[in-house]
Amino acid sequence: MKAIKDSVHGHVRLGEVAAELVDTPAFQRLRHIKQLSTVRLVYPSANHTRFEHSLGVYHLARSAIEGLGVDDDTAAHVRAAAMLHDVGHGPYGHQTEGIIRRATGRDHDDVRWLLTDADREVCQVLERNGLDPERVAALIDGEGALGPLVSGELDVDRMDYLVRDAHHTGVPYGTVDTGRLVTELRLIGGDGSGTAADLVLDEGNVATAESLLVARSLMNAVVYRHHVSRVAGAMLERACERYLDRTGTEVEAFRRMADHDLLVALRDRVPGLGERIERRDLYKRAVWAGIDEVPAGTVDAGRAEERAAEREIADAVGVDHDAVLVDIPSRPALKEAGSAVVVDGVPQRLEDASELVTGLRAAERRRWTLGVYCPAERVDAVAAAARDVLGLRATGRPSA
Amino acid sequence: MKAIKDSVHGHVRLGEVAAELVDTPAFQRLRHIKQLSTVRLVYPSANHTRFEHSLGVYHLARSAIEGLGVDDDTAAHVRAAAMLHDVGHGPYGHQTEGIIRRATGRDHDDVRWLLTDADREVCQVLERNGLDPERVAALIDGEGALGPLVSGELDVDRMDYLVRDAHHTGVPYGTVDTGRLVTELRLIGGDGSGTAADLVLDEGNVATAESLLVARSLMNAVVYRHHVSRVAGAMLERACERYLDRTGTEVEAFRRMADHDLLVALRDRVPGLGERIERRDLYKRAVWAGIDEVPAGTVDAGRAEERAAEREIADAVGVDHDAVLVDIPSRPALKEAGSAVVVDGVPQRLEDASELVTGLRAAERRRWTLGVYCPAERVDAVAAAARDVLGLRATGRPSA
Amino acid sequence: MKAIKDSVHGHVRLGEVAAELVDTPAFQRLRHIKQLSTVRLVYPSANHTRFEHSLGVYHLARSAIEGLGVDDDTAAHVRAAAMLHDVGHGPYGHQTEGIIRRATGRDHDDVRWLLTDADREVCQVLERNGLDPERVAALIDGEGALGPLVSGELDVDRMDYLVRDAHHTGVPYGTVDTGRLVTELRLIGGDGSGTAADLVLDEGNVATAESLLVARSLMNAVVYRHHVSRVAGAMLERACERYLDRTGTEVEAFRRMADHDLLVALRDRVPGLGERIERRDLYKRAVWAGIDEVPAGTVDAGRAEERAAEREIADAVGVDHDAVLVDIPSRPALKEAGSAVVVDGVPQRLEDASELVTGLRAAERRRWTLGVYCPAERVDAVAAAARDVLGLRATGRPSA
Amino acid sequence: MKAIKDSVHGHVRLGEVAAELVDTPAFQRLRHIKQLSTVRLVYPSANHTRFEHSLGVYHLARSAIEGLGVDDDTAAHVRAAAMLHDVGHGPYGHQTEGIIRRATGRDHDDVRWLLTDADREVCQVLERNGLDPERVAALIDGEGALGPLVSGELDVDRMDYLVRDAHHTGVPYGTVDTGRLVTELRLIGGDGSGTAADLVLDEGNVATAESLLVARSLMNAVVYRHHVSRVAGAMLERACERYLDRTGTEVEAFRRMADHDLLVALRDRVPGLGERIERRDLYKRAVWAGIDEVPAGTVDAGRAEERAAEREIADAVGVDHDAVLVDIPSRPALKEAGSAVVVDGVPQRLEDASELVTGLRAAERRRWTLGVYCPAERVDAVAAAARDVLGLRATGRPSA
Repeated sequence: MKAIKDSVHGHVRLGEVAAELVDTPAFQRLRHIKQLSTVRLVYPSANHTRFEHSLGVYHLARSAIEGLGVDDDTAAHVRAAAMLHDVGHGPYGHQTEGIIRRATGRDHDDVRWLLTDADREVCQVLERNGLDPERVAALIDGEGALGPLVSGELDVDRMDYLVRDAHHTGVPYGTVDTGRLVTELRLIGGDGSGTAADLVLDEGNVATAESLLVARSLMNAVVYRHHVSRVAGAMLERACERYLDRTGTEVEAFRRMADHDLLVALRDRVPGLGERIERRDLYKRAVWAGIDEVPAGTVDAGRAEERAAEREIADAVGVDHDAVLVDIPSRPALKEAGSAVVVDGVPQRLEDASELVTGLRAAERRRWTLGVYCPAERVDAVAAAARDVLGLRATGRPSA
Repeated sequence: MKAIKDSVHGHVRLGEVAAELVDTPAFQRLRHIKQLSTVRLVYPSANHTRFEHSLGVYHLARSAIEGLGVDDDTAAHVRAAAMLHDVGHGPYGHQTEGIIRRATGRDHDDVRWLLTDADREVCQVLERNGLDPERVAALIDGEGALGPLVSGELDVDRMDYLVRDAHHTGVPYGTVDTGRLVTELRLIGGDGSGTAADLVLDEGNVATAESLLVARSLMNAVVYRHHVSRVAGAMLERACERYLDRTGTEVEAFRRMADHDLLVALRDRVPGLGERIERRDLYKRAVWAGIDEVPAGTVDAGRAEERAAEREIADAVGVDHDAVLVDIPSRPALKEAGSAVVVDGVPQRLEDASELVTGLRAAERRRWTLGVYCPAERVDAVAAAARDVLGLRATGRPSA
Repeated sequence: MKAIKDSVHGHVRLGEVAAELVDTPAFQRLRHIKQLSTVRLVYPSANHTRFEHSLGVYHLARSAIEGLGVDDDTAAHVRAAAMLHDVGHGPYGHQTEGIIRRATGRDHDDVRWLLTDADREVCQVLERNGLDPERVAALIDGEGALGPLVSGELDVDRMDYLVRDAHHTGVPYGTVDTGRLVTELRLIGGDGSGTAADLVLDEGNVATAESLLVARSLMNAVVYRHHVSRVAGAMLERACERYLDRTGTEVEAFRRMADHDLLVALRDRVPGLGERIERRDLYKRAVWAGIDEVPAGTVDAGRAEERAAEREIADAVGVDHDAVLVDIPSRPALKEAGSAVVVDGVPQRLEDASELVTGLRAAERRRWTLGVYCPAERVDAVAAAARDVLGLRATGRPSA
Repeated sequence: MKAIKDSVHGHVRLGEVAAELVDTPAFQRLRHIKQLSTVRLVYPSANHTRFEHSLGVYHLARSAIEGLGVDDDTAAHVRAAAMLHDVGHGPYGHQTEGIIRRATGRDHDDVRWLLTDADREVCQVLERNGLDPERVAALIDGEGALGPLVSGELDVDRMDYLVRDAHHTGVPYGTVDTGRLVTELRLIGGDGSGTAADLVLDEGNVATAESLLVARSLMNAVVYRHHVSRVAGAMLERACERYLDRTGTEVEAFRRMADHDLLVALRDRVPGLGERIERRDLYKRAVWAGIDEVPAGTVDAGRAEERAAEREIADAVGVDHDAVLVDIPSRPALKEAGSAVVVDGVPQRLEDASELVTGLRAAERRRWTLGVYCPAERVDAVAAAARDVLGLRATGRPSA
């Protein structure tokens, strides 16, 4: 069995199918997609990639599946899904997801098209080993009883990335007891093929599940939503939109780019923003507003409304449209709250078993922030125009 | 400067006073007091002592004090207090605290008597170096503006023990960003002597403070209040009471024992319980009841009521009085909730700045559990008698 | 399967036999035997015990045995031997080994007597589970093809302790790639019962094996043979000899003591040395001499010659016999040098495959040091007398 | 003081000059130069960059300089040199060093040209803060008494990279006690300006220095010279040569590229090799020969002779010249052997104080290997031709 050294899990041992999948171009491409895209501009050690993360997810899935008592064929499909769950990502991962979804209607979790026709090599490996690409794709999409293990509230994806992101950023908040989590998962009901069953955490694991939520919440606060990373992310998204407009690149070709392709392409074709991103010469916050300052309609604005607001603000100040970026995150959510945990013999939703969830929900809401960014020398003018255009309420809380 | 290697902080460098204090018998004794007493019966790696913990607290205090802008004399007193904050502990630390407090009215934090007369050697070191033992004792007691740094809601004691206990038990939940905490503390107001000032966490540290609470809450759940450790702790406390009764040992002499003295003494003089503790041949849970099952009066019972109930249950079942142990923890609290954090320029209590605190409070309440323990073969009979004697309500929740 | 949290290996999962063995008094006693005895007087975090080490050795043995292709019955015996390999240790481990060996002719590796008659409970567990105590004892003694896995040059004992001792002392030198070592072991020849076969490291592992030697060599230099630990060890050994003389305690009863028993016993019955050890009020080095200063006959002196020299020096200076300790380590050796490693398809001894071994041998020789210790105020007088009595050559190298 | 989180050192605090240097384009470019270039094709977690490494080197230099007693001005120059020591690196670091040196006669350590005229921004920061760029450049070149701290046998560069590379690859061999090393350095002689003085390790640090050598030797064996990384490195070097030939790019412009620029450029302009590198579709080893198989003249061959041999082999087999790569490393060396360590009061070269050095030298020699690489399907033919052209002796040792 081939082993790959991993800085988080030690040795990751690859079964035969996994070893073949690693060698496909679609998987090798993940070496060139960083896990945390613009976060590395805040935490310079955070250069880890979706390649090693995918190996980690495979590793955890293999451990978890051992204790679930499913048949070999089902287990093999779950392992393949874990390996491949991120091959659908575009360059800079989540940062370009919105663009790709708006253009194609497809998410990175939707890899059906990819597995079933676009990328013959992955398909061939699967079929040669007696695996059904369609079934693998369905698992990646979270379908069936075991879909939630790959993509759900208690999935091995999250277990790996929280630990890995903490390890590489150097913050102590993402530490989750993965060793315990993977051995405490159970399938309740079902017939061994993983259908008509529920994935739950066994008795005595409320604190284990809570630690996952808490880790996510603290990582959100200090890493994933750090304002510097968000500013850079907004610049990147805008630069990508410009790039697609200017070059007429097909979204599908765009999606297949790797980080280095995109970085070079943006610098060459959208030099203003592209060079700034490469050199970390970033916009500053003109507005940084909590949810209570923002009208409900604005909180729920889509990208089209964001862009309209950007243009209106830019025109009001008299600057180029690319000089104003409006960044409205989606409403605060806490998906892990729906995890099932057995308490006193009965499976319950974590939010019903743990009062902590209510507190974490409120913390997420408090941390939700709308941002407007622009070059440093325009901060005051843009702030005034933006508060006006977006209808922000004054709350006494300073804007940045 | 002398350096001592520490498995948590790397090198701890000792100033001159600290190096002299280390060599006193009162400080060397801490080598023989384990930090987590009976927890090592659950987590066998948890053998660390109050000696290394005290060095760690000194190390953090030294870092924290550097950024507070206090005068050298004040800083020297704080460092000495950090070194000595645990010299008042009896054998098995918190486990014998109740006994000592009930007999003497003194807590382990009250080291005035110790520093000011009983232990001449510590006093002599302090005085020889121009330090006032009385002032050191006051700091250990949490008095003055800098007392809270040594013994308060945001103290270096807690920062060290959460990280150290997690490191040694091997659980990933106690990780706190001590490096950040110690550099973000500020004194607001005051004149440099550390009086009339408040210790607060600087702007931007709500998540940092929350991580401390969360770490404590999760460590409570899986480590500090693990039922095996509680059972062993209850056996130990009872054995100590018997030992004091039987031997007429002065409480003061008892308090000066080290762990090894106590272990040998109990095995020799209270062989039933003493040998069981040494061999980890523990009682089992007959009752394990949540706060909603327990009448309010019982929740607030003192040791005298506990012992009366134990006798009543034992008599009802017809066993020796030492065969039934009733263990009622104090009401759930969350002292860190009062930490002060600067938000938008204004110091606030953490519980006002963080909705998470409410959730953690509720979680602490849910985890509060009353236990009744006895030898395995008596579990059923003791359970029935205990529910009756203690007036427990049936809630449908199984008793263990 | 029962799991125990370990600070080094994460979770150690116990099979059924192991879970039963853990509960025997002989195994529980290991909670009270520290792994590094007097080293904790230098590295205060080094409080780990032979209990957790034994679990770690079991854990590594289980992994290693999986890849060796032996039958289930053989594997079960190896696992039991790994669990039990240290139950023969006296208090303070290696520190009392010499005393016990001189009195009984038995080493801590010789557990035949223990498994086969003295400790019925361990025997009963083994026999109840179909295991042969005699065969387990033989493995612990290093016999047969698989004996070397438990007690040999490439044994799992050493793999665990080097990593564990480094983790707990906080020095970075003991790190060994145990994950790789246990998966690269092979049995060459043999029939699956583990007889007539050789345990070797597979091709491509010269550097892996070298890292084990190097770790040992560096740990020797900075941890195991640190002069403070050696001084305390010499005081302890002398105190034990006095204790046995004075109390007439049977060596067998002595061997069954735990650390806390011995610490209390020495303080009570050999108060001079006993109290000094407890309070870390140690003797100082009067002589610290390299191998080139010491006559060959003295290098090879046994305990009897050491004691004769001690008395002669003490008489010359006019102090009590307990005030002079002569500490002559055994000749430098490097047992791991005989490990077998496959190079270019052929098993070779590591010392033939690695020129590093020669360098490490020379380094061990250079670091060999004879010590003479006494109370601080007598250092000069004792140094002069000792150099004379021991016939030390002047080399220009200072004595301490 | 600005702090940056680092996964190895925790928090790196930046002084004013350092904070300004970080923001220059020349320093930000280091975010895009990976520390270990092609090693990440073997150890997928090894994605760390020269940006974070440079911060780490600065951090260690700052600690080391504190204990050396030099004046503030000298210390400031050393800190700046530590920050900037790698800004002269081309894309893929050491992998393109040969090309740049052959074309320009300049090494990455020679940053005089860069600091003194090409990169005005770095110069301006230095001069604005009263620092002399010429003096900083001289330190980076290893000149003066403190040059060796930045670039020498005991430099902070090596201390950082050994620990960092081990952390990110996940191998346990690179661990060096940096905390101890930086506090044990001393300047012997000199006048505080750092001239006419020698940098040495203080008494009692032979094992500390040895651990640095040993770490390097083991890291060489399993990481830096792993054959997969060497194959990819040889492919990359050849692709770069082709790229320069084909595009006429100035070497200076080439040197200023970042990793992503080069990856895209090679794929576009040298598609055969460029695409293979991107997809990790690597050549295989046709020959892998130890130093005793290789004629002395061949061991000392320069790049010109290598290329001549490549062409001759390719012609003999009848393949394209890019299909054969000859990779002859420079002769084994062990530069750290010259480190100065104080032993018995006298500074000595480590190789005179430590017999280990001889062993490590021999190990380096044994590990020296010449490689010839080609596409998998040509391995046999190329092997035969290569052995003939290079005049390799048969030693019975298999070729791969």
